[in-house]
Amino acid sequence: MAFDELVVSRRSVRQYNEKNVERDKIEVLVNAAMWAPTAGNLQPLHFVVVRDKGVLEKVKLFSPGMPKTAPCVIAICADLEEAKLKGGEFAKKIAPVDSAFAAQNILLKAHHLRLGTCVVKSYNEKSIARILGLPGEMAVLMLIAVGYYDKRPKAPVRKSLSEVLHYENWEGGLKQDE
Amino acid sequence: MAFDELVVSRRSVRQYNEKNVERDKIEVLVNAAMWAPTAGNLQPLHFVVVRDKGVLEKVKLFSPGMPKTAPCVIAICADLEEAKLKGGEFAKKIAPVDSAFAAQNILLKAHHLRLGTCVVKSYNEKSIARILGLPGEMAVLMLIAVGYYDKRPKAPVRKSLSEVLHYENWEGGLKQDE
Repeated sequence: MAFDELVVSRRSVRQYNEKNVERDKIEVLVNAAMWAPTAGNLQPLHFVVVRDKGVLEKVKLFSPGMPKTAPCVIAICADLEEAKLKGGEFAKKIAPVDSAFAAQNILLKAHHLRLGTCVVKSYNEKSIARILGLPGEMAVLMLIAVGYYDKRPKAPVRKSLSEVLHYENWEGGLKQDE
Repeated sequence: MAFDELVVSRRSVRQYNEKNVERDKIEVLVNAAMWAPTAGNLQPLHFVVVRDKGVLEKVKLFSPGMPKTAPCVIAICADLEEAKLKGGEFAKKIAPVDSAFAAQNILLKAHHLRLGTCVVKSYNEKSIARILGLPGEMAVLMLIAVGYYDKRPKAPVRKSLSEVLHYENWEGGLKQDE
């Protein structure tokens, strides 16, 4: 699939079929995530991949937005204390942004592999951390549902370029002369 | 360029040549950004593109990490009050994550167009907002330098997959049996 089509045709998928995600594909996804930019090359992120039905069930119990049929969840985590030690308060503050850069690579690469994804940001962090056995200083920054699907969701309505693009300053509209 | 190569060969570029970024390419970049996921489809982001030398000089004065030779800066902004009105405190809190999803699409699409980029997260937000004439409730979430370059930076050292990938829980290493 061409890159432009990849970007525009990616959807948040909330209904998955029963096929699980192959381990080699998971590794391709996480590898893509690792090449996203990371502030100061600190690379604070860890990726905990859940496919075991028992663990999945527990994770879903504490993340109400998680699609019920998701066969695989990738939890993006970060050692915020290590980030702070290496890069100061700023590095700690910026880790969630790093996680989103990494996540977007996962979403696009998954779509490239015909896998669906859905980012879930609302969950009980302490419970998820306990279920995943994370060390105390490790924060759960984002959950991503991954799986195969039968039906691609329709495109959501997007604003037009002229509503969001400004030249030189806020008042500089799209239509002004070059 | 194939998608995998695109992801792995993208670099943060800090040295640009004098050619400026064409307006049609800027619009392609912002369009890619608009198709990134956005929580609740709220689409709180605005993109202010600066290429005017006088404005650029002012922006660089208040963003010490901004490459001095960058001929173009895209400021990703969000109306946090509007986000809060539409989606509550959570939507306001999550806007910076939305901005990073959008930014990653810009970085990849720019690289696809042989443009270099560099994300800058340290700047004096109030000064940048004033320079760009932003309305009071509009936050500056991220700056991205964009431009052409002569020499592609070397790849930074990345951790190995086995250091960051865990199966089922923190203790589940990459090497365990399927």
